[in-house]
Amino acid sequence: MAEQIDSLQRLVAQLSKLPGIGRKSAQRLAYFLLAQPKEEAEALAQAILQARQSVRRCSVCGNYTDEERCAICRDERRDRRLLCVVRDPRDVAAMERTRDYNGLYHVLHGVISPMEGVGPEDIAIKELLGRLDGVEEVILATNPDIEGEATAAYIARLLKPFGLRVSRIAHGMPVGSDLEYTDEITLSRAMRGRTSL
Amino acid sequence: MAEQIDSLQRLVAQLSKLPGIGRKSAQRLAYFLLAQPKEEAEALAQAILQARQSVRRCSVCGNYTDEERCAICRDERRDRRLLCVVRDPRDVAAMERTRDYNGLYHVLHGVISPMEGVGPEDIAIKELLGRLDGVEEVILATNPDIEGEATAAYIARLLKPFGLRVSRIAHGMPVGSDLEYTDEITLSRAMRGRTSL
Repeated sequence: MAEQIDSLQRLVAQLSKLPGIGRKSAQRLAYFLLAQPKEEAEALAQAILQARQSVRRCSVCGNYTDEERCAICRDERRDRRLLCVVRDPRDVAAMERTRDYNGLYHVLHGVISPMEGVGPEDIAIKELLGRLDGVEEVILATNPDIEGEATAAYIARLLKPFGLRVSRIAHGMPVGSDLEYTDEITLSRAMRGRTSL
Repeated sequence: MAEQIDSLQRLVAQLSKLPGIGRKSAQRLAYFLLAQPKEEAEALAQAILQARQSVRRCSVCGNYTDEERCAICRDERRDRRLLCVVRDPRDVAAMERTRDYNGLYHVLHGVISPMEGVGPEDIAIKELLGRLDGVEEVILATNPDIEGEATAAYIARLLKPFGLRVSRIAHGMPVGSDLEYTDEITLSRAMRGRTSL
């Protein structure tokens, strides 16, 4: 009969709430944290508390920041006529890694998903409509999945009256992928979106 | 140019120290913790601190406990003549799950590993020698890998003068495995360790 150590069980339970961490992994992590020098485990706990305390949403675009406005919104060199709409802050980070885009962002913090009870009023669409002054193009960069497409379509319809350019990121074959193994929908999107050389 | 949010970077760095968590997973976990309700992230941090604070090593066997002696050592119904020597507390948990063993344990908290600079004096061998009173059999249950074997052999030699039975857990084919895909060393161990029916 194994010992029920309450605090150990609680730690395992908390760790298994993390995405991609099952019960077994959570146990492994918990035992690892107990075997580590105490300062290491405390450093992790402090890092979590610290991040939760100092990281907040940019008051303009909703991206994560530790100031009132995020570094991208503060950066005078960014093109304020371009607005790229993404689902969450991770997508901003992904887009920034391309070093290709020089406009601003708008983070929705979610996508419309009737299945999960997320409606248009639950994500930052109202905030988007409130910051279109001076914007010439809104690029809808939600994921190319059902909810991302639906959200993009919904926003596109809302933006129509504003008379600005609304675009959607291209669908097509991932670079380095193989025609033979590409699914038909992606392939037909790649055909329709072909560009002349 | 992506924003350097110090506290976020620190959280990612701390998370990537966990076993099996690479940089990408650490980023995913960090963003997850930021997107969660604040109480959830704090609950995890508190669980880590709490576990580190209240979980300690049993003064007798070295297993994790939140008391002076662990539940197994305290349990009067366990057979005190049997001592099972394992590398760490996770192994105690694994062994207990079999519900097959009713003796006591001794946790080494490591194995001898010259490669990693771990000598016999760095693990709880001295403590083992100090608790052999009344013990009739020591079962060496370190892992069947190089370090586990070497540690078992080392301890077996030390125990010789005490004149008690020293045994090693059996090597052989895992239940449900396939002869064809079993490595030769395991297979030859399984042959040598065969039992008559």
